[in-house]
Amino acid sequence: MLAPSEKALVPFVSVENMMQLVHHIGVERVLVELTDVIEADFRRWETFDKTPRVASHSREGVIELMPTSDGEIYSFKYVNGHPKNMAQGLQTVTAFGLLAEVSTGYPVLLTEMTLLTALRTAATSAMAARHLAPKGAKTMAMIGNGAQAEFQALAMKAVLGIENIRLYDIDPKATDKVVRNLSGSGLNVTACTSSQAAIEGAEIITTCTADKQYATILTDNMVGAGVHINAIGGDCPGKTELHRDILARASTFVEYPPQTRVEGEIQQMEADYPVTELWKVILGEEKGRHNAGQITLFDSVGFAIEDFSALRYIRDRLKGTPFYQDLDIIADPDDSRDLFGMLARARD
Amino acid sequence: MLAPSEKALVPFVSVENMMQLVHHIGVERVLVELTDVIEADFRRWETFDKTPRVASHSREGVIELMPTSDGEIYSFKYVNGHPKNMAQGLQTVTAFGLLAEVSTGYPVLLTEMTLLTALRTAATSAMAARHLAPKGAKTMAMIGNGAQAEFQALAMKAVLGIENIRLYDIDPKATDKVVRNLSGSGLNVTACTSSQAAIEGAEIITTCTADKQYATILTDNMVGAGVHINAIGGDCPGKTELHRDILARASTFVEYPPQTRVEGEIQQMEADYPVTELWKVILGEEKGRHNAGQITLFDSVGFAIEDFSALRYIRDRLKGTPFYQDLDIIADPDDSRDLFGMLARARD
Repeated sequence: MLAPSEKALVPFVSVENMMQLVHHIGVERVLVELTDVIEADFRRWETFDKTPRVASHSREGVIELMPTSDGEIYSFKYVNGHPKNMAQGLQTVTAFGLLAEVSTGYPVLLTEMTLLTALRTAATSAMAARHLAPKGAKTMAMIGNGAQAEFQALAMKAVLGIENIRLYDIDPKATDKVVRNLSGSGLNVTACTSSQAAIEGAEIITTCTADKQYATILTDNMVGAGVHINAIGGDCPGKTELHRDILARASTFVEYPPQTRVEGEIQQMEADYPVTELWKVILGEEKGRHNAGQITLFDSVGFAIEDFSALRYIRDRLKGTPFYQDLDIIADPDDSRDLFGMLARARD
Repeated sequence: MLAPSEKALVPFVSVENMMQLVHHIGVERVLVELTDVIEADFRRWETFDKTPRVASHSREGVIELMPTSDGEIYSFKYVNGHPKNMAQGLQTVTAFGLLAEVSTGYPVLLTEMTLLTALRTAATSAMAARHLAPKGAKTMAMIGNGAQAEFQALAMKAVLGIENIRLYDIDPKATDKVVRNLSGSGLNVTACTSSQAAIEGAEIITTCTADKQYATILTDNMVGAGVHINAIGGDCPGKTELHRDILARASTFVEYPPQTRVEGEIQQMEADYPVTELWKVILGEEKGRHNAGQITLFDSVGFAIEDFSALRYIRDRLKGTPFYQDLDIIADPDDSRDLFGMLARARD
């Protein structure tokens, strides 16, 4: 039997290899480069197929497939969301993803995406803040100190120059974990005992809590003029974090309106609540922040193009490194019509 | 760093391991067992989520995701269809698939599915023929001698007791390949020089040609009373094999009508062309073959539940064998909120 051809082997990046690749490049550098790659793809937003994600809901959670394509490369991500997993010591969100050539349909990369999604979510937040946050912002409040918190803090530091992080979580152990993980990062980190205390002096407020319910992490009176709100945690139907009065005052920016109206903070608002598409701000077609008193809100739910960008980035950065293994996942008979002959010869 | 937990490792079946597993069980036994597993799932058809496949079309072909779930197990298949691949020595169709637990969203099996799709397609044809073909059928004509041909022949032998296979393809080299591959199978194999010659005396006519176009492999005058037609090749918009006059005479059976009306032979017919769902015949809720002169037609396009069954079968049959490798694809921090800590510790 002949060995499989090059096309039949798909590079696979395991969790361990993803971690080694990230350290090989450097976490902050990955976040900066990812921010730029995602921004480059947002600039050519109109070249992408945009399908709403394909969700399979159950009592315990959701499994989603998120495909997109730019006509040359196709990507999809498999991702679940199971809030009760945490109680069993399992991840609430796990993910993996794939890139394929549109011209042949052959996969060219398979990779873990739990870590990669955390990185791309933080990079997307930093990209939005680069266009929307007050110039010279130095302090971010981080409300919800779960799996996403450190990535958000480092992305805001590396991309925007944030120097101070003010933490709050209903579980002080979560805050302790972030304090510990960010020691030595160069950030001034302050643990606070309330949301109200955390947002003191912050130009950017990031909310990223995990409960699958309508919650009010921020009330209207807490949000002063001029801040940028980076709302990560309200990201599926029935799950929000902000009081609707904040939305009534804010200028709201979104990834893909048909998805955000169902999954984002704005699911609380009327169907004609005005939103601005972030890609149009990046291209200069729409205004971002245009006065100092304005409250800007990035109502982030995560979109397939961000995963496409992240996968494309990993594929490029993988070249010349040892951080992958080849998977024999594509059947590759010498004569493409002779699949059965390949099987028969494997017996010998 | 701790080793990943059991849940974080996903069994992966490579092409090589799939071939070894199939030989370990025996090809014909795999086909018989798969037929029974698919039939068992068709019997509980109404328990499944049925989503039309999510297709990304391009000039060269299509990439599709086919998800389904029975409420306990979720599956999806990635599959491409690129007719021009053959000219480059690549497979027209390649596939892989995944099973996951609905309750946690964690994947439990990742496998090649190019071979597995060929096996499940043949098993589905045999299942349909078991309910629709004339009793005691001994001879099958096989028009189109590509990658699917030998699997069809062996499934019809193993499940129905077919003894004679009559082959025709516009390319005699394809026919030679099937003759060679089926020597020693116990089937009487006859190479024919026309479709007309191939169907002589056949109680079952299987059509499985590859061109992406409206073709007429069978014309009305070729099809005698009482035969069962197993139409595999007309399986996407713009691709059919049978003349519409045959459809006008036949009793037509389908997997999932909303998909077959777009992709199957019946795309040629009016929207109200009558079809019977195969699962209802299997359950005894609708009539299958009810007289000897009737022409029955299984207008097969392939459906996600068949892949679900095939994946479930492989998962069961894999237990206790060495035919898989564990992939570290799920990030598994000791504390699920401490994804960053896991990353940081991997540096040391």
